[in-house]
Amino acid sequence: MGVILLRKIMKKTLKEIAEIVEGKVLGNENTLITNIAGIAEAKEGDITFVSNPKYIKFIETTKASGIIIAEDQKDRVKIPAIVSKNPYFSYAKLLKYAAKEKEKHPSGISKNCSISESVIIENNVAISDFSVIDENVRIDSGTVIYPNCYIGKKSKIGKNCIIYPNVTIREETIIGNSVIIHSGTVIGSDGFGYVPLNNKIEKIPQIGTVEICDDVEIGANVTIDRATTGKTFIGKGTKIDNLVQIAHNVHIGENSIIVAQTGISGSTEIGKGVTIAGQAGLGGHLTIGDGATIGAQSGVMGDVPPKETVSGYPARPHGKAMRIYALIQKLPELFEELKKLKSRIKHE
Amino acid sequence: MGVILLRKIMKKTLKEIAEIVEGKVLGNENTLITNIAGIAEAKEGDITFVSNPKYIKFIETTKASGIIIAEDQKDRVKIPAIVSKNPYFSYAKLLKYAAKEKEKHPSGISKNCSISESVIIENNVAISDFSVIDENVRIDSGTVIYPNCYIGKKSKIGKNCIIYPNVTIREETIIGNSVIIHSGTVIGSDGFGYVPLNNKIEKIPQIGTVEICDDVEIGANVTIDRATTGKTFIGKGTKIDNLVQIAHNVHIGENSIIVAQTGISGSTEIGKGVTIAGQAGLGGHLTIGDGATIGAQSGVMGDVPPKETVSGYPARPHGKAMRIYALIQKLPELFEELKKLKSRIKHE
Amino acid sequence: MGVILLRKIMKKTLKEIAEIVEGKVLGNENTLITNIAGIAEAKEGDITFVSNPKYIKFIETTKASGIIIAEDQKDRVKIPAIVSKNPYFSYAKLLKYAAKEKEKHPSGISKNCSISESVIIENNVAISDFSVIDENVRIDSGTVIYPNCYIGKKSKIGKNCIIYPNVTIREETIIGNSVIIHSGTVIGSDGFGYVPLNNKIEKIPQIGTVEICDDVEIGANVTIDRATTGKTFIGKGTKIDNLVQIAHNVHIGENSIIVAQTGISGSTEIGKGVTIAGQAGLGGHLTIGDGATIGAQSGVMGDVPPKETVSGYPARPHGKAMRIYALIQKLPELFEELKKLKSRIKHE
Repeated sequence: MGVILLRKIMKKTLKEIAEIVEGKVLGNENTLITNIAGIAEAKEGDITFVSNPKYIKFIETTKASGIIIAEDQKDRVKIPAIVSKNPYFSYAKLLKYAAKEKEKHPSGISKNCSISESVIIENNVAISDFSVIDENVRIDSGTVIYPNCYIGKKSKIGKNCIIYPNVTIREETIIGNSVIIHSGTVIGSDGFGYVPLNNKIEKIPQIGTVEICDDVEIGANVTIDRATTGKTFIGKGTKIDNLVQIAHNVHIGENSIIVAQTGISGSTEIGKGVTIAGQAGLGGHLTIGDGATIGAQSGVMGDVPPKETVSGYPARPHGKAMRIYALIQKLPELFEELKKLKSRIKHE
Repeated sequence: MGVILLRKIMKKTLKEIAEIVEGKVLGNENTLITNIAGIAEAKEGDITFVSNPKYIKFIETTKASGIIIAEDQKDRVKIPAIVSKNPYFSYAKLLKYAAKEKEKHPSGISKNCSISESVIIENNVAISDFSVIDENVRIDSGTVIYPNCYIGKKSKIGKNCIIYPNVTIREETIIGNSVIIHSGTVIGSDGFGYVPLNNKIEKIPQIGTVEICDDVEIGANVTIDRATTGKTFIGKGTKIDNLVQIAHNVHIGENSIIVAQTGISGSTEIGKGVTIAGQAGLGGHLTIGDGATIGAQSGVMGDVPPKETVSGYPARPHGKAMRIYALIQKLPELFEELKKLKSRIKHE
Repeated sequence: MGVILLRKIMKKTLKEIAEIVEGKVLGNENTLITNIAGIAEAKEGDITFVSNPKYIKFIETTKASGIIIAEDQKDRVKIPAIVSKNPYFSYAKLLKYAAKEKEKHPSGISKNCSISESVIIENNVAISDFSVIDENVRIDSGTVIYPNCYIGKKSKIGKNCIIYPNVTIREETIIGNSVIIHSGTVIGSDGFGYVPLNNKIEKIPQIGTVEICDDVEIGANVTIDRATTGKTFIGKGTKIDNLVQIAHNVHIGENSIIVAQTGISGSTEIGKGVTIAGQAGLGGHLTIGDGATIGAQSGVMGDVPPKETVSGYPARPHGKAMRIYALIQKLPELFEELKKLKSRIKHE
């Protein structure tokens, strides 16, 4: 198993890396770097970085051969370093460089896949083994479809998308450019709609669609239901983590972040630049304003104004929620004091 | 992307639609309808409906060409309308009609699937590309299996079922008639059972099965574990939303509703007509009575009597839970008052 | 559907079973046993057991033909029995025996799968229909891969593993020996890492890996993300239930238990022998000590010391959490008493 541990991601001098990440070398610019690692785990040959305050303490003890730091860390560092205006972003840039070196997605159309005659496929599209492209689908140039995926009838997938293995995209789904969809995710499953009738539960057919805009990334095993009518909509640049549930007719604005295992109920509208932390639950038919933040495990039952931060169950403005949770902790003392007070009054 | 937005679902006059939904036309019965839409999004050519009180305000401003309304909305409506005894149900009926027009499931047995010799397949069954039907499976007439599914040994699937892509049904699962299973769902995975022994965690083999009754619908990426012994059971007509977890030996009665991301622990018995809202968690070995309702995100740790509504963590009767959550909101004032009281007593 | 109910798992006398489970027969040792069942559901021909105190009441009314009991239940039992030092473990042993009789995993390399030329496959490996083994993968002897799986480049899978249908294992994943992975699970999807830049959300490439040690079992539709750099790590013998989310760079020690729908945020370290109950959520960069227990639906926002039990939202030591939740129940009375007290003081 050591193979993975010792793998070399690259072979660069600190000087060469400084050029990639737009920083300045401090110390020996010929230091050889072969891998990238977190500051606590880094070993000889690795370059690391520091940004999270929790990890600054490692700056003097890290075993890395090089480190990306901010201007104000210059005096603490004892190993060759790269000084950057934004160490976290420099680190991301270096990872991007390393990923490009490593990354080799499938190419070409497999002989083992199934493509309907009516499908339109642009240049440089990859369709891998045992993937199925159903009637009247259109796939634009540069898009890669890994094995065992299903793309339903009349769906349209833009340019330069990556669809990882075992993804299901149901009929009439619209996907923009540069969208990434991770394995096991299901887009366009029927919304959960029923109407009770004569002691039976009648299904309300879900004849709407789903539209995913450019630059969206969707994690693994996510579910995004098709609309009853109209469309479920994910705005440009929005990022969705694993195991998130997005119900029918939900509308999410641009550049929002939805963390793992969150659930969003039907017809709720999420603005632009909204952050929803993990395992949060949002009721149906709500409006979450632009730039709002919703805490982990929150239970949101009402609208949230723009830029508001809410948390807790039921979700309230975060400051109030924090105060209330702090007071809940003090309940034992409160009950104690009330008891004393009662006995004092009795005895007076 | 406008293609989808402008798509025509049908081409009917209001009069023809009134016949489909069993309503009476109010206004021009020759109005042409080409699509169905929500009241806020509707455009020219669309028919819409109103039922949720939150949306009644749109009745005068909707851009729809027609609207399905209740008797008592007659005076407010300014566009051609269909008056119905139950607008929501009429709407569902119209969707059903439109879905039938649109819906064209796969048919026939693909040359690219894998079917064991011992499999029994009735008439009019569809088995799509790269689906695998293992030994001694039986599939009844009219059932459709989309691509990339796996049906394990000795499983039996009834009539007129729809199994969407990438579904896994493990060995010896029994599925009734008219069951719908959405993509990514796993039925019959091993229950989570272990026994600690000599500092190791020994697996308890799960040799039971799963039985899914007629008219059940199961959402996307759901997990339903097989029983340790005996069976995990989902009763007739029950509807299960996306990403729900149903553990080994759970028994769910008829016509229950389980909303997204709910988890039900091992051996718990859920009655008939139970509603469990999203992200609820139920402990193991519990009994939830017929007609009970469990609130979103509840943590249910004890039995729930028939027709009871519970909510909160830990779950309590809903009325009490609401009162308690309201009082929790007042804790800051409570602490303030207690402080005042103390100082008054001191100073007296 | 009666077929399943009447199926015979085995055909053994009580004496033969006593030998398998290392117990002593009490009563007719020639009693014929054909199936295994829970004490409440058992019928003629079944053997059952009792261990959970909740089910001891059934000991006198069960319809089983035989029962595995502890020494101290000897006097209550009226049917042929097997007396065991540990009835639950004896039961597990019997299930294991029955499972072996029943279990017949696929064998051989299917003609319908896709294996890259550079793949190394040891003896007795099964690779089933429509599974894809990408470049430079290595699979050790005795491992079974069910249909429709994807194993990414340079991944390594140890001996005697079982990979159920529709599993995705992304590139460079390392899996030990005797690992079981249930259907729909995704290992090695990109971690959820972004950096905001000029009003865009830039992806941080995730170039690390995942390592799963020996004897781990992973449920259905689980997601385990690859590390940003370094690796996400699941220690030997750890068991993970369905729909669990494990973020990038999480490290889990040996023999821990993670129950369904739990979410663990990035870089959190979980010790050995930790138990995390269902739907719990853990923040990022935390340390959970060896032997700690985390209650169902907890929201863990800070480190947890070894052997500590925590519960609630936010999670606190379990004793304190229980006291606080009990006091919350009493809030209506508290407010009532405070009101009385105020009026008394006023009137004095």
